[in-house]
Amino acid sequence: MTDNLYTLSEIVDKKFSHGEEIPDNIINSIRSITAAGDYIGMAQINPIAGNIEYNAKKIAKYIKYACKIGLEMIVFPELALMGYPIEDTIDRHPVIVEENIKWLKGLAKITRGTTALVGFIEPRKIEAEGKKYFNSVAILKEGKIAGIVRKSLLPNYSEFNDYRYIEPSPVVGVQPPETLGCFDRENIMPSSKIFEKYGISICEDCWNNKEFFEKHLYEKDPIEELSEEKPAVFINCSASPTRAKKEQLKHNMLSFIAQKYKTPIVYVNQVGAIDNSSFDGSSRVFNSNGELIARAKSFEEQLLIVNPLKNTGKIYPLTKGLDKSLTEQKVFTLEYESDLERTYKTIIQGIRDYFRKCGFKRAVLGLSGGLDSTICAVLLADAIGKENVYGISMPSKITSRESRSDAEELANNLGINFTEASIKPMIETTTESLNKLFAVIEQNWDGRFKTSFTPDNIQARSRAMFLWGISNEFSSCIPIATSDKSELYMGYATINGDMSGGFAPIADVPKTKLFAFARWLNKNREVKNAIPEAIILKKPGAELAIDPKTGKPLIAEDALMPYEFLDEIIWRIENKNEGYQDLLNTKFVYETHNQVTKEQKQEWIDKFFRRMSTALYKWSILPPSVIVESRSINKYDYRQPITSSKINYKGVKDSYIDSILKTD
Amino acid sequence: MTDNLYTLSEIVDKKFSHGEEIPDNIINSIRSITAAGDYIGMAQINPIAGNIEYNAKKIAKYIKYACKIGLEMIVFPELALMGYPIEDTIDRHPVIVEENIKWLKGLAKITRGTTALVGFIEPRKIEAEGKKYFNSVAILKEGKIAGIVRKSLLPNYSEFNDYRYIEPSPVVGVQPPETLGCFDRENIMPSSKIFEKYGISICEDCWNNKEFFEKHLYEKDPIEELSEEKPAVFINCSASPTRAKKEQLKHNMLSFIAQKYKTPIVYVNQVGAIDNSSFDGSSRVFNSNGELIARAKSFEEQLLIVNPLKNTGKIYPLTKGLDKSLTEQKVFTLEYESDLERTYKTIIQGIRDYFRKCGFKRAVLGLSGGLDSTICAVLLADAIGKENVYGISMPSKITSRESRSDAEELANNLGINFTEASIKPMIETTTESLNKLFAVIEQNWDGRFKTSFTPDNIQARSRAMFLWGISNEFSSCIPIATSDKSELYMGYATINGDMSGGFAPIADVPKTKLFAFARWLNKNREVKNAIPEAIILKKPGAELAIDPKTGKPLIAEDALMPYEFLDEIIWRIENKNEGYQDLLNTKFVYETHNQVTKEQKQEWIDKFFRRMSTALYKWSILPPSVIVESRSINKYDYRQPITSSKINYKGVKDSYIDSILKTD
Repeated sequence: MTDNLYTLSEIVDKKFSHGEEIPDNIINSIRSITAAGDYIGMAQINPIAGNIEYNAKKIAKYIKYACKIGLEMIVFPELALMGYPIEDTIDRHPVIVEENIKWLKGLAKITRGTTALVGFIEPRKIEAEGKKYFNSVAILKEGKIAGIVRKSLLPNYSEFNDYRYIEPSPVVGVQPPETLGCFDRENIMPSSKIFEKYGISICEDCWNNKEFFEKHLYEKDPIEELSEEKPAVFINCSASPTRAKKEQLKHNMLSFIAQKYKTPIVYVNQVGAIDNSSFDGSSRVFNSNGELIARAKSFEEQLLIVNPLKNTGKIYPLTKGLDKSLTEQKVFTLEYESDLERTYKTIIQGIRDYFRKCGFKRAVLGLSGGLDSTICAVLLADAIGKENVYGISMPSKITSRESRSDAEELANNLGINFTEASIKPMIETTTESLNKLFAVIEQNWDGRFKTSFTPDNIQARSRAMFLWGISNEFSSCIPIATSDKSELYMGYATINGDMSGGFAPIADVPKTKLFAFARWLNKNREVKNAIPEAIILKKPGAELAIDPKTGKPLIAEDALMPYEFLDEIIWRIENKNEGYQDLLNTKFVYETHNQVTKEQKQEWIDKFFRRMSTALYKWSILPPSVIVESRSINKYDYRQPITSSKINYKGVKDSYIDSILKTD
Repeated sequence: MTDNLYTLSEIVDKKFSHGEEIPDNIINSIRSITAAGDYIGMAQINPIAGNIEYNAKKIAKYIKYACKIGLEMIVFPELALMGYPIEDTIDRHPVIVEENIKWLKGLAKITRGTTALVGFIEPRKIEAEGKKYFNSVAILKEGKIAGIVRKSLLPNYSEFNDYRYIEPSPVVGVQPPETLGCFDRENIMPSSKIFEKYGISICEDCWNNKEFFEKHLYEKDPIEELSEEKPAVFINCSASPTRAKKEQLKHNMLSFIAQKYKTPIVYVNQVGAIDNSSFDGSSRVFNSNGELIARAKSFEEQLLIVNPLKNTGKIYPLTKGLDKSLTEQKVFTLEYESDLERTYKTIIQGIRDYFRKCGFKRAVLGLSGGLDSTICAVLLADAIGKENVYGISMPSKITSRESRSDAEELANNLGINFTEASIKPMIETTTESLNKLFAVIEQNWDGRFKTSFTPDNIQARSRAMFLWGISNEFSSCIPIATSDKSELYMGYATINGDMSGGFAPIADVPKTKLFAFARWLNKNREVKNAIPEAIILKKPGAELAIDPKTGKPLIAEDALMPYEFLDEIIWRIENKNEGYQDLLNTKFVYETHNQVTKEQKQEWIDKFFRRMSTALYKWSILPPSVIVESRSINKYDYRQPITSSKINYKGVKDSYIDSILKTD
């Protein structure tokens, strides 16, 4: 019978995604199962930030269906009506808050025969002190609002910014809606028994268990408080984006809570991407033994029906390999395999939703025959359709014949549009104009570099000029910024050049992971080996300048340092908070299979901090990008003043301080 | 005697700023005055974010001087050792926190004969729950750390982000330093009587008076709590950036507190700019009647010596006109006069400190003969020196002869470097290459615009290409983004064109204010009338395209709407939270002297919301800029998801909602 429930539900999900009606026989079959009671629908939806009508229609569709199949309750993610995150928009444009109240009342009216938990922004009473809003979940029942749950713990780390405009709720559990002024009496019903059965909380509220976490950010533990009421089931409405290594933490924590309180927990997560944050869905249920009994799909909208009291559920697979990451990664490793499908789906969803939600259809990018633009092309083809991608090879005189043919071969393999457009005339004209100009300026200004990056940058900027030109000329089309994380750390990206674009798909993926990713894509995509082997084997280099030593195009690792070494520095800083001295004293993976002198190592580490310090400006103007790793340089995730570029990362000795301060 | 104190102090300030020694006779003269006791030094310093050594040396210089002249106490701004804001840097690079503790201990050692209040980041005990740090002030005395004050109220609105990494202090007033683990016993001294005399708080702690503010953000009022101990004087260490209309609020609030508790308040504010935030200094003292008895200079480092118990102080003037803004501006007006000197100094400091703190010396900008680039040129000449500014006129075939000669006249008047460089060859080559490319792409893609912005944008991008080329070729030089606030709201700025640059000086100044500003600059700068009258009289237009109706370059107001109308929309949204319907029902100042039909008005308002929605991406990649107005679109001040571009700003009727949700 359970099998039948999920077979039918999969048909329903498909019909929903195609906007089709659900046939009565399916409704009746499902209803005959759920009639036994205690069935809950986990409605893992993909909202658009601030587009209340779009979100409300989606929610309405599921509520109506829940009524028809007789679910006891249907649960939506955190802030389902508003989309999460919505940021300062609610403060500057209060109309969207008013709209979310209006639509909520409308949704209440259609909720009959079931109970719906719908996340929304709740304006607080005007006379109240503190911030203007609560992050709330409304309990809709029999046409009315039957209760309100408010978020108590407000995360403000990483990409989260809840505390900025939301007041923490002093109380947990269901509150009567008359505690607030935004509903009229006609919208309100007195509390009912359902609230004793369910212990409802919102996202971060369940992330502060004092036994599970060694360090906890908040004093209050809402789940502990809820447990005192002895609910039959915990419910948590979430909007929790995917990040490297988070799955393991989330899984273990939810399991721990269920087991500790001997109470099943139903966790409903948002799916879809909003700007830089990609939410993975993967809503789930743990039974009172802490065992996983249901898990929704990752990166897809789904309504998963469960019965937490009767262990009824279906466990859809996580993205492949992610199970293996269930033990926390404590060391840097080049073994990226277990995270590559998640990486793929995170970025695909990030691209797809950015395009769809902004109204773009098509992308144009430069194909250099190098790894970064290659991976971007593959991801775009998969995310928005090969017919919507145009790859342009834009050779200069430095571009090798191999690069051009590799680019073309890739495009053919992917089936994307492709053409070649020479930037030589533009470079010649620009260089000529600029050289004249430089000669004039030199008459008044000193400090002209003997060897400058100007010619390199003219190439990169000419290419961007072509791409933005196409974006201006053809509707619904944006250019793509192809910079990767390792090179952005080093500022090895041209302003208004390769780091410019409407979206930056791989800005949070380090280079060594991109190599592994290329092999993974070749193996796991429907069309195998789309990426020519030559592209993977080639040493990365921007092909913008000739190395005077070799007479060949400059190799990036020669200009920077070995990527393996660089990526380990980044990993250690982001994941272990290591500093200059720690790094000097660490044995790098690279050192286990390469001879590195102490001087060479120090030179690389020095170079890292020097280049990173001057890259801060570039981070601040980076286009929107998907956050993939546990920590990033995305400006909505990591903020550092650009004027802090003179930080002494090496630190000083006490004796130095004494000598400086005592000198008078 | 008081006169003598300030005459001598001004000599001292000058000597400090030139790095000169203070002669003994001056020291002795001042000492003879301060010997009477109760004298406090307000050390309004300009720190560099994260550059602990730089900040510590500056603090040390003042502490040593305070010791010599026998001040009872010397007070530094909030987070003086670290610089404010420091953002996530302390989390990712904990070395700077370690360094700030080391240097703090060093500063304690040189504090003898006076007491120093020094702001720093204090790591909390490892076992403590909550965030890792306190925002603290150390009380340094007789070589030791004698006490700690911790910030209780953590602002997270606007540019503030304290709550992100700082734990709110549960207690107010001085705590013994042994409450934390970051100091050894040798650094600590037992509490002394000084703490009963002074009620010390940090910045936001004094911004929650429940009588003064109608709405208050926090439950706790640290000043109220401190008042229970009946201190002789309140001291507040601040880092509070200047914004339009904030002076009036700050003045009235501090006066109110002093009067209410019949206790003088000494308020010490940071000066200088850190990235987008410009701090105005203007430290001050109110006596127990709430009367202003001392105020330090605005936008300058200064050590102002005061005696709050004996009404000893000197009131330096605010920026001119700002007194007039002491009544809150409740309506939109074109009378910008009272805020123009503050606007000028805020931006000058913003530019100067960005350049100095990042290590840049020179700027290059395109001079179009239009208002925006003109104002930027004037501000740059004043901020970094005319010899360090290069203005380039880059005419295309659309550029009028007047624009070229106006630009040259301006440059001559300012004495900045100037040359002309034609972008015609580049435009021709680029256009030719692009047209070929477009013809190819059109074979595979539909949706080519019949009239596109491509030619306009090629011009703007070619100019940026020149400017970035110069920046690459000459050391310590960055190009300037000249976009203004009104046009950024409308997305009327070219990506990789005029909105691209290392810094955007006027990104937070609306166009109508720029007109007033131009006249003000002509009247108030040392060299009068540097801006040619023709530039001020000219109707703004980007000179990128020909208006088919007139055969002349397109006027911006024709493409957008009258700037006066546009700026009032922006003002109402930012300052009054007005929405679409409010704006429709508002009588605009523009309407008091122009006939505007209802249809025309609605068309402009529709256009505003439509264009603003698609400008969000541009805001996200805008270069660093100085925040000037009370609210801005600076990405560190205002965050809105780019994918929220489909918000329905008009709202809908309840009947519409019912009809949508009931339809099945």
